[in-house]
Amino acid sequence: MTSREDGRAVDQLRDIRITRGWLDHAQGSCLIEFGKTRVLCAAAASEGVPRWRKGSGLGWVTAEYAMLPQATHDRSSRESVKGRIGGRTHEISRLVGRSLRATIDDKALGENTITIDCDVLQADGGTRTAAITGAYIALADAVAHLKGLGATAGEPLVESVAAISVGIVDGVPMLDLPYVEDVRAHTDMNVVMTGSGAFVEVQGTAEGQPFDKAELDALLELAAGGCADLTRLQTEALSA
Amino acid sequence: MTSREDGRAVDQLRDIRITRGWLDHAQGSCLIEFGKTRVLCAAAASEGVPRWRKGSGLGWVTAEYAMLPQATHDRSSRESVKGRIGGRTHEISRLVGRSLRATIDDKALGENTITIDCDVLQADGGTRTAAITGAYIALADAVAHLKGLGATAGEPLVESVAAISVGIVDGVPMLDLPYVEDVRAHTDMNVVMTGSGAFVEVQGTAEGQPFDKAELDALLELAAGGCADLTRLQTEALSA
Amino acid sequence: MTSREDGRAVDQLRDIRITRGWLDHAQGSCLIEFGKTRVLCAAAASEGVPRWRKGSGLGWVTAEYAMLPQATHDRSSRESVKGRIGGRTHEISRLVGRSLRATIDDKALGENTITIDCDVLQADGGTRTAAITGAYIALADAVAHLKGLGATAGEPLVESVAAISVGIVDGVPMLDLPYVEDVRAHTDMNVVMTGSGAFVEVQGTAEGQPFDKAELDALLELAAGGCADLTRLQTEALSA
Amino acid sequence: MTSREDGRAVDQLRDIRITRGWLDHAQGSCLIEFGKTRVLCAAAASEGVPRWRKGSGLGWVTAEYAMLPQATHDRSSRESVKGRIGGRTHEISRLVGRSLRATIDDKALGENTITIDCDVLQADGGTRTAAITGAYIALADAVAHLKGLGATAGEPLVESVAAISVGIVDGVPMLDLPYVEDVRAHTDMNVVMTGSGAFVEVQGTAEGQPFDKAELDALLELAAGGCADLTRLQTEALSA
Amino acid sequence: MTSREDGRAVDQLRDIRITRGWLDHAQGSCLIEFGKTRVLCAAAASEGVPRWRKGSGLGWVTAEYAMLPQATHDRSSRESVKGRIGGRTHEISRLVGRSLRATIDDKALGENTITIDCDVLQADGGTRTAAITGAYIALADAVAHLKGLGATAGEPLVESVAAISVGIVDGVPMLDLPYVEDVRAHTDMNVVMTGSGAFVEVQGTAEGQPFDKAELDALLELAAGGCADLTRLQTEALSA
Amino acid sequence: MTSREDGRAVDQLRDIRITRGWLDHAQGSCLIEFGKTRVLCAAAASEGVPRWRKGSGLGWVTAEYAMLPQATHDRSSRESVKGRIGGRTHEISRLVGRSLRATIDDKALGENTITIDCDVLQADGGTRTAAITGAYIALADAVAHLKGLGATAGEPLVESVAAISVGIVDGVPMLDLPYVEDVRAHTDMNVVMTGSGAFVEVQGTAEGQPFDKAELDALLELAAGGCADLTRLQTEALSA
Repeated sequence: MTSREDGRAVDQLRDIRITRGWLDHAQGSCLIEFGKTRVLCAAAASEGVPRWRKGSGLGWVTAEYAMLPQATHDRSSRESVKGRIGGRTHEISRLVGRSLRATIDDKALGENTITIDCDVLQADGGTRTAAITGAYIALADAVAHLKGLGATAGEPLVESVAAISVGIVDGVPMLDLPYVEDVRAHTDMNVVMTGSGAFVEVQGTAEGQPFDKAELDALLELAAGGCADLTRLQTEALSA
Repeated sequence: MTSREDGRAVDQLRDIRITRGWLDHAQGSCLIEFGKTRVLCAAAASEGVPRWRKGSGLGWVTAEYAMLPQATHDRSSRESVKGRIGGRTHEISRLVGRSLRATIDDKALGENTITIDCDVLQADGGTRTAAITGAYIALADAVAHLKGLGATAGEPLVESVAAISVGIVDGVPMLDLPYVEDVRAHTDMNVVMTGSGAFVEVQGTAEGQPFDKAELDALLELAAGGCADLTRLQTEALSA
Repeated sequence: MTSREDGRAVDQLRDIRITRGWLDHAQGSCLIEFGKTRVLCAAAASEGVPRWRKGSGLGWVTAEYAMLPQATHDRSSRESVKGRIGGRTHEISRLVGRSLRATIDDKALGENTITIDCDVLQADGGTRTAAITGAYIALADAVAHLKGLGATAGEPLVESVAAISVGIVDGVPMLDLPYVEDVRAHTDMNVVMTGSGAFVEVQGTAEGQPFDKAELDALLELAAGGCADLTRLQTEALSA
Repeated sequence: MTSREDGRAVDQLRDIRITRGWLDHAQGSCLIEFGKTRVLCAAAASEGVPRWRKGSGLGWVTAEYAMLPQATHDRSSRESVKGRIGGRTHEISRLVGRSLRATIDDKALGENTITIDCDVLQADGGTRTAAITGAYIALADAVAHLKGLGATAGEPLVESVAAISVGIVDGVPMLDLPYVEDVRAHTDMNVVMTGSGAFVEVQGTAEGQPFDKAELDALLELAAGGCADLTRLQTEALSA
Repeated sequence: MTSREDGRAVDQLRDIRITRGWLDHAQGSCLIEFGKTRVLCAAAASEGVPRWRKGSGLGWVTAEYAMLPQATHDRSSRESVKGRIGGRTHEISRLVGRSLRATIDDKALGENTITIDCDVLQADGGTRTAAITGAYIALADAVAHLKGLGATAGEPLVESVAAISVGIVDGVPMLDLPYVEDVRAHTDMNVVMTGSGAFVEVQGTAEGQPFDKAELDALLELAAGGCADLTRLQTEALSA
Repeated sequence: MTSREDGRAVDQLRDIRITRGWLDHAQGSCLIEFGKTRVLCAAAASEGVPRWRKGSGLGWVTAEYAMLPQATHDRSSRESVKGRIGGRTHEISRLVGRSLRATIDDKALGENTITIDCDVLQADGGTRTAAITGAYIALADAVAHLKGLGATAGEPLVESVAAISVGIVDGVPMLDLPYVEDVRAHTDMNVVMTGSGAFVEVQGTAEGQPFDKAELDALLELAAGGCADLTRLQTEALSA
């Protein structure tokens, strides 16, 4: 029987907390916590779309992910000071944006733009999956805001989305890795799923040692369970 | 009798909240709130000093101030994405750094560096003064951490520092302006003071209409009262 | 029976051509073509490793991917002129580097660095998978070069790696999508595998419509076949 | 009795020289010298205002301050080569712009823009105050140029502005510090005043040691005298 | 009698190969080789001109030159990664653009833009002259493409252009220097000429030792012969 | 008989003024004027050489050219604000550096660096040639400064250098073109020569219409006369 440092079962999420409406100005926001990982998600809704989409009648959802310098154990340099966005930041921002767009009917959204900012205040593994899961809450509230203004054509929010990390640590597939497990994992996977249980993104990476189909299947099953749990927590938060 | 929108007296601070140790990893941290203004201050202590100070035997304290894109009513572009720091950000970072250095005995600090990050999570006026006031808390805890490691030579923290904004709104000098008053002020001043009541920085700016010596004096007196109140709250927070 | 525009079977690769040693100076190089997609891969081997790896006794393999402005149908701006690397470029460079590192025994490589440049001269879908597949050829020759110099400790190259794209077009899973199929695919997956058939990276993305486990499995099976074919072609090229 | 290295009284300005019209093309220009400090100020007047001000009927005045690499004793790197503006440059550019805007009636200026460049050719303390004082001359001539073209609605120039540095050196408040005194000052203040004697900006900074209200008052009095002298010299220069 | 390492006569070009239409998408393209120097030239024709030329009725031709990181013996850093274009790249891009514009009747081109990209895949001396010579081929095909669309007003291509390097090596003037000769040359000249034998650009640089009029004349005569040969090869390539 | 707007003969320089020692701190400096063109040249001498030249025993001379925003008739944007150096600036900086290096014996200079800054305060044609001619004065004084310190090994300054522009205006070759002639010239040439009359750089560019050998020869002869005159003026300035 595998034991995890924090005593969790291998298929158990860390303590998840969603504080909806953490900000006073944003059209949607939440502070989401996966254990010690803490991400502030904020959604800004504005009329109009980027130039390349004008006249299409379609809306646009985009996201930016970033980490505060002291979110990690050792302070990292500020990307604004370095004058350039790192590859990891770029990659995760794009992932969050794609994941959110999977929940939206662009036509119903109309020519409106929703920008979601996910700022990691404290990092302890799984920041991108917490960001996606929390961003969905902020997005839902921003969509509701637009609907309240009569700015949409029907219901733009057609699905929900949640994400979780899984990995193989000491040969054992596990759900929702904190930093201490993440560094020991030899395979690391991030899975984004809709509330109805389909895949939006599957990103598996071998760290040091390739993985086989059986391992992949085990990880996907764990992830499906985790995402279902997160979907339930999202529903609770949004109905509060 | 002047009435303020939020019912405060002209010499009264907004509701101030200091949550010390808001982060798990940083050597010192706090979430400081001046009304709806919310700034996360984190201090990282590390051995060594920048190249230009090596071999001097002296420590170094520096600060970086930044604002999350959705801290303000209208989302602003991320400076990391624009690839450059704006003038306002630069200016405030330098102000926070200078203010904190006024509290430190560089020799006692020894060749250690403390970097304070002040990230505005929500802005409603007075973000730079909240940043300085909260940064002092984070700094004090980081210094204590270094002392605990035996890395200092005596007591590096020789003073405390706090800051407040004052301004003239509709002809009336007032303390601690929220955004709604700030935009109406025709003179705007930020005052940084030590716990023993001396000035570290005085920055007064006429907005539209120059000010005279009597107005300046009235503003400084208000600021002195506000800083004294903040000093008291800092002491409470640090002795908790 | 599904018909593809170019007459291929759904599990058939495009015409693959590998011209090894296309450059005169590089320690390893090839021009690799997947149909009209044409990527120039070059490997530079140099003594020493980046600062953060010094003294570890371990080597380092890294990669940079880029696209010439007129590789695509419509000319795109040069990233050097824009002064910043785009998110897509960053993401693929990181993917290529990770994939190549899966083939290397860092200890046997010793403190040497191999940098692989993958420049897309013409793009017609699958540029990242062609880049990985060709980069392996360049890497193998650069490793052989280092071995020839006696600069390694044993055999650094412990595996081979190849990559292919798969996707679901009009409901049918297909192998190795050219641009015209890629834009119509509702799920798009890039799979990186070792010569011995294990997974190094699996990156699946729903475009517009989420996918289920059965679709995922079908895609992975197609990819396994394609990678096996590519492995064979790599072996031929390297034994020529 | 305090003696200064250059023999001046504590309330005496350095030798001030204003060479109006130093450039042939600019709509207004001067070379201003405060002792060895030498700043070239040039004003460009153009029709139209920045996008965010269009349609307001209001004009815009802005300024850019910079220093040539060999203005200082040790050559400093060129900001254009480094690819970014430093914090100090940003801060001073903003200060000069704000100070100049205090002299202008935006409505009378109409939708015209005046851009003032202040380039420090040689630095010996007080470059920002020389820049403001000289920029006013260039601004006045550019405004006159616009009036000559009939492009304004009445008189846009409603005040004059001048600036001086003051500081406490060896316990003695002094006016207009050259570099050698500036580095020894324990309090440093820049004061910007209108020709009619009101304050536009007061920026006092403790260097090492905080200052009290009495010191602040002494410095402001010195500054008022200095600004009055500069105002006289500006009037002379403009009536020549 | 001077002998060159590769056995050529002093007035003899290296082996020149022009592969026209090397790319499938570009409106004009060629791979041009001067010995081991290999440059990929691609021309993109698009409707419209840059903002500053709009409404003029005139077309615009521009060029960008760049070098792949492993084109040279030692890998050089990617300019996109460094975030800035080097001086040499800038200078050559401008030279190629000016040279090509000498062949075009802007009025006949009409408000269309042709952008030529010259990417050095392998460098062995003379990359800028190979770029100009090859770019002319790509330009000619792009112009023909526009004519085919009826987008021009008559014949925009009024001349041809070719370029060659000459230099003095060990006191002997020589044509078309490869890298090994280039580094030993004490005078280095690049000459751009029209097909009818007039000069478009003459850029001579003393390396270490100044040159006199007689040397200049000898170099220009060599260059005239080389450019005439290249013109012949261009004509052949375009009539194939 | 051709008449020039300013009444000069075709082979006559504009009024040249050299104010040596215009700056107080730089090791060498001058303000050089070619008519209304005004360039401030400053030389900084420092111990040590760039990393790539360390241990060679050889010195290094480099130059940076730049233009103030209001040097030209219409204000141009500041390159530091744009965050990048333009192609023209890069190109001229490199030309000035190469020209100056032609005057120096690197071995005699020893491992010292001289950096020359040429800042155009006002531009009216010929700024790069004025920069080179003035930079030589600053360089000579900086070399003398190093010799005075005993930091050189013999005489590093082995030649002088001067530069002038020539061009064909309305079919007539002319010397030293001001802006008004420069824009009308159909061929434009910059010539850099040593004091002993040899060529360091010849850069001729056809503007609109190619030129032949006879025109080239006429221009070079004019330039030789102009450079000889400048050499005389340099000698006078340095012996004053």
